[in-house]
Amino acid sequence: MTAIDWNAELLEQAETLCGAARECARRGWVPATAGNFSFRDASGRIFITRSGLDKGAIQPANLLEIDPEGRVLAGEGKPSAETALHGVLYRRFPGAGATFHVHTVWNTLLSDQFAVLGAVRLENYELLKALSGVSTHEHRELVPILENSQDYLALARELEAALDTYPRAHGVLLRRHGLYTWGESVAGARRHLEALEFLFEVESRRLGVAS
Amino acid sequence: MTAIDWNAELLEQAETLCGAARECARRGWVPATAGNFSFRDASGRIFITRSGLDKGAIQPANLLEIDPEGRVLAGEGKPSAETALHGVLYRRFPGAGATFHVHTVWNTLLSDQFAVLGAVRLENYELLKALSGVSTHEHRELVPILENSQDYLALARELEAALDTYPRAHGVLLRRHGLYTWGESVAGARRHLEALEFLFEVESRRLGVAS
Amino acid sequence: MTAIDWNAELLEQAETLCGAARECARRGWVPATAGNFSFRDASGRIFITRSGLDKGAIQPANLLEIDPEGRVLAGEGKPSAETALHGVLYRRFPGAGATFHVHTVWNTLLSDQFAVLGAVRLENYELLKALSGVSTHEHRELVPILENSQDYLALARELEAALDTYPRAHGVLLRRHGLYTWGESVAGARRHLEALEFLFEVESRRLGVAS
Amino acid sequence: MTAIDWNAELLEQAETLCGAARECARRGWVPATAGNFSFRDASGRIFITRSGLDKGAIQPANLLEIDPEGRVLAGEGKPSAETALHGVLYRRFPGAGATFHVHTVWNTLLSDQFAVLGAVRLENYELLKALSGVSTHEHRELVPILENSQDYLALARELEAALDTYPRAHGVLLRRHGLYTWGESVAGARRHLEALEFLFEVESRRLGVAS
Repeated sequence: MTAIDWNAELLEQAETLCGAARECARRGWVPATAGNFSFRDASGRIFITRSGLDKGAIQPANLLEIDPEGRVLAGEGKPSAETALHGVLYRRFPGAGATFHVHTVWNTLLSDQFAVLGAVRLENYELLKALSGVSTHEHRELVPILENSQDYLALARELEAALDTYPRAHGVLLRRHGLYTWGESVAGARRHLEALEFLFEVESRRLGVAS
Repeated sequence: MTAIDWNAELLEQAETLCGAARECARRGWVPATAGNFSFRDASGRIFITRSGLDKGAIQPANLLEIDPEGRVLAGEGKPSAETALHGVLYRRFPGAGATFHVHTVWNTLLSDQFAVLGAVRLENYELLKALSGVSTHEHRELVPILENSQDYLALARELEAALDTYPRAHGVLLRRHGLYTWGESVAGARRHLEALEFLFEVESRRLGVAS
Repeated sequence: MTAIDWNAELLEQAETLCGAARECARRGWVPATAGNFSFRDASGRIFITRSGLDKGAIQPANLLEIDPEGRVLAGEGKPSAETALHGVLYRRFPGAGATFHVHTVWNTLLSDQFAVLGAVRLENYELLKALSGVSTHEHRELVPILENSQDYLALARELEAALDTYPRAHGVLLRRHGLYTWGESVAGARRHLEALEFLFEVESRRLGVAS
Repeated sequence: MTAIDWNAELLEQAETLCGAARECARRGWVPATAGNFSFRDASGRIFITRSGLDKGAIQPANLLEIDPEGRVLAGEGKPSAETALHGVLYRRFPGAGATFHVHTVWNTLLSDQFAVLGAVRLENYELLKALSGVSTHEHRELVPILENSQDYLALARELEAALDTYPRAHGVLLRRHGLYTWGESVAGARRHLEALEFLFEVESRRLGVAS
């Protein structure tokens, strides 16, 4: 495989992405090498963390460059099977500049409890205003839940279908698996992640879903 | 906009404020760029964090100087819509030297559960002595709760009214939104914040409000 | 007040004490400037953190030297009202080399729930072996609970009485206030603190005392 | 006792082991000097943390070299009584390159709640794929639970028996004591540890075992 052709601006974005991933590791949101993180630069190039690494020590050298179909273009190491889901999100949302996938205690619990309803409902919280395009707490955010699967092509199709049903979603849950969220930039994806995870914890505790 | 006219003492206070904000970020109390932090120096000048920044990386360069009505006098960037509430507190409490606003899991939960009563009651805890003017655990602290709103002028009036009703309060909750607290200095506001948040967690767990 | 007459060995012990205090601050165990920490060196000199400081930034310069009755001998600043309780413990336990006092969510909750019984019972946990003199999990540790009071002379007498009743205790709780624990050294007091706080959390969660 | 005969590669592995132990300390997983950590290099030499140390400050100089029966070959200090259990695991699993033992709130709670069933069952979680040889969330992991004992020879025999019954286990719980887990390397044992502890917390909260 060829090496990634970095430039200074790309490398700075890569450092920002890796910093966000290391912060997620510090919080326990990517245990056991779980999770993956990607960004897309202004020219459309996409970079993603490779599979099987402790995100607490991730560096730009651990990224792969991929195309929008999720095929590896450059970089060392094995891509995650979930790379295809990042591709779905970048194709669907032209303004998306970063995508994060994390496994947390609260998203795992809520994704199971509300699977039968097909989505988690978050409403009347001030922190909803952290989601792009939301300007009031009087907002109802629906986070769709997909059944988990090891067939990632099937998952990719179900992700497409969920986004047809919930076109204004800011995140998608996989049942007993984790959250995908995205944003206009690394900072934007991180803002969405922090808002959704905060609200998942609040809702879990409020509803007594989890003890 | 003109640049802020710093002097050494002001800059030191600004560093202290930013350090307190970064510590709140580390604890997860200002997720998704939420929250804001301000201080007022001995000569009456007021400085506040600008809107939309990750408080985990905040620096004095990210502050705005405002007047007591919340209008920006100097500095780069957009003020938070909540700047007006800081102004209310500085006008009401001549001894206030700092004001903190945070969104936490426990203050969000309690502010919702007790909204119908209009206030959270905290009593018989040793840590109440961390609140200025309180010298015994045999103290009843009432933390008023305002309904959340995007009309910040209306919120400012309701904050005034709540402080008329609870003139000895050390903090005010906005429902499903967050806490405002203030103190004689940055250290004093931080002491009030840590005491109130500790007691919110204890009360939430003790009462089974949240699981 | 005269300055403390430090020597290299004392200063090293003071640094160790302050490091333990800062670690407690990082864990949220001494919120809002609560808590205090002391050690006694081989020659019998006693040093304690002064009142009203954020323990997250405590340094040897913030210590006071006191006599066993809790009177200040050297150092700058105001002693805590709770200094007398440290004195009780050093007089009662000739082998005690350090005493820690912390306010935590779990010790606050348990101290209230079990106040009517007069003690918290901890038994059949492997971690009990971290307590000096305990060599098996088949041990019953009783942690006495004192009613909280602002009359520290009365509290000191009640602490004496509780230790008459529970002479083998490794810690004492003040109701809705916090824990006192001690050990043969700073490391020993820290080991007792970590063991007791771990077990308080486990018991609170196991019994559903707190949610 | 003779000094350990280090070489550069061994020392690097020792540093990695100690880094993992310090990270466990930061998370509160080895309170009060609890827990122990070992690795086995390619030539079969085994190194383990010595007894009674704060794992938050552990260094390669604090390791002992032992033989597969758990007898100390080199290094300073007292071996843990639990060294024998590390030996059982290295003899049973020729591919094991590291073994971790931790005491956490969630493993303590679950090990008690499920003791009567003899094992904790974890299934249908994506994070199960972090366990070596598991390629789908549709996996049932059984974590056997041994009654706690201070007779470590008897415990070693019961550990052998449990592994006869559950030959594909990735971890073993001691009741109200802690978890043993192992992996092909330090990184592998850490991955297993993080996956199991995450799932213990999720299951405890989901089932309302603990509040």
